[in-house]
Amino acid sequence: MTTPREHLIDWLQDAYAMEVQAEKLMDNLRSRLNQYPSLSAKLDQHIQETKGQAEQVKQCLHQLGADTSSLKTGFAAFTGTAQALSGMFVTDEVVKGAVFSHAFEQFEVANYTVLIAAAQAAGEPAIAATLEAIRREEEAMAGWLRDNLPALVQQFLLTGEKR
Amino acid sequence: MTTPREHLIDWLQDAYAMEVQAEKLMDNLRSRLNQYPSLSAKLDQHIQETKGQAEQVKQCLHQLGADTSSLKTGFAAFTGTAQALSGMFVTDEVVKGAVFSHAFEQFEVANYTVLIAAAQAAGEPAIAATLEAIRREEEAMAGWLRDNLPALVQQFLLTGEKR
Repeated sequence: MTTPREHLIDWLQDAYAMEVQAEKLMDNLRSRLNQYPSLSAKLDQHIQETKGQAEQVKQCLHQLGADTSSLKTGFAAFTGTAQALSGMFVTDEVVKGAVFSHAFEQFEVANYTVLIAAAQAAGEPAIAATLEAIRREEEAMAGWLRDNLPALVQQFLLTGEKR
Repeated sequence: MTTPREHLIDWLQDAYAMEVQAEKLMDNLRSRLNQYPSLSAKLDQHIQETKGQAEQVKQCLHQLGADTSSLKTGFAAFTGTAQALSGMFVTDEVVKGAVFSHAFEQFEVANYTVLIAAAQAAGEPAIAATLEAIRREEEAMAGWLRDNLPALVQQFLLTGEKR
């Protein structure tokens, strides 16, 4: 029998790994966006938020008497995959990169939704409130990417870059 | 110089591969959901929609004088990855499966957003309208998963399944 608290700790450890990976993904994408200043600036902003999120998740783990050291194999495989993917987009990288970033932000939104429900089930309302604040930042980033995707595609198509 | 029409064809071919993969992912997840009848029923419904979407994307390609045979290596690698991931969730598979399905639906939403912009740039309003209809189905599925995630987590935590 695994308690809600044990699941909450497990999932927070996954979330920490996810945030570390998110920062790497965005760093990687941003380094190739010279021609797209608004996306580049937005990534800069969200990279800073992501660093704060990783720190907040770590603090939640400390409040539960746990730490970030015991990461899950399954999740590590996911993040390795995400990293590989982020390097895969060669010529239409800005479009695929933005699409993948949007999916990754939404992946984070759903993970925090799971974590909030787990924190509530574990009787940890303060942790739930922290996670809700992080989720709002992820939602805002996902929404920005979605809203700016059509203009990004138009700019990309105008340059006529070869795929 | 690659034209908007050429990009549209490339991306529609990716979308076809994506839909084929989406069906496999959902079939795989559904086969392990005996204890979660509402999610299972929703997946059944969306698997049927997904088959229709693949067929509609194929028709869009035919309208452009192209077909589904020339799939991209990069995307095939993504879908292989997605397939591997879908088998990775062992004990908390229902929660991780729903989180990953949500991310995959949002990945589809963003891809159709790109395709709609490309179809408009290529002067293909009928194709854009078809793609908008598909995007609405993907958005509805993503929204359902998101809305039902907290109840799914509660049910999962009540069973006390070991991770």
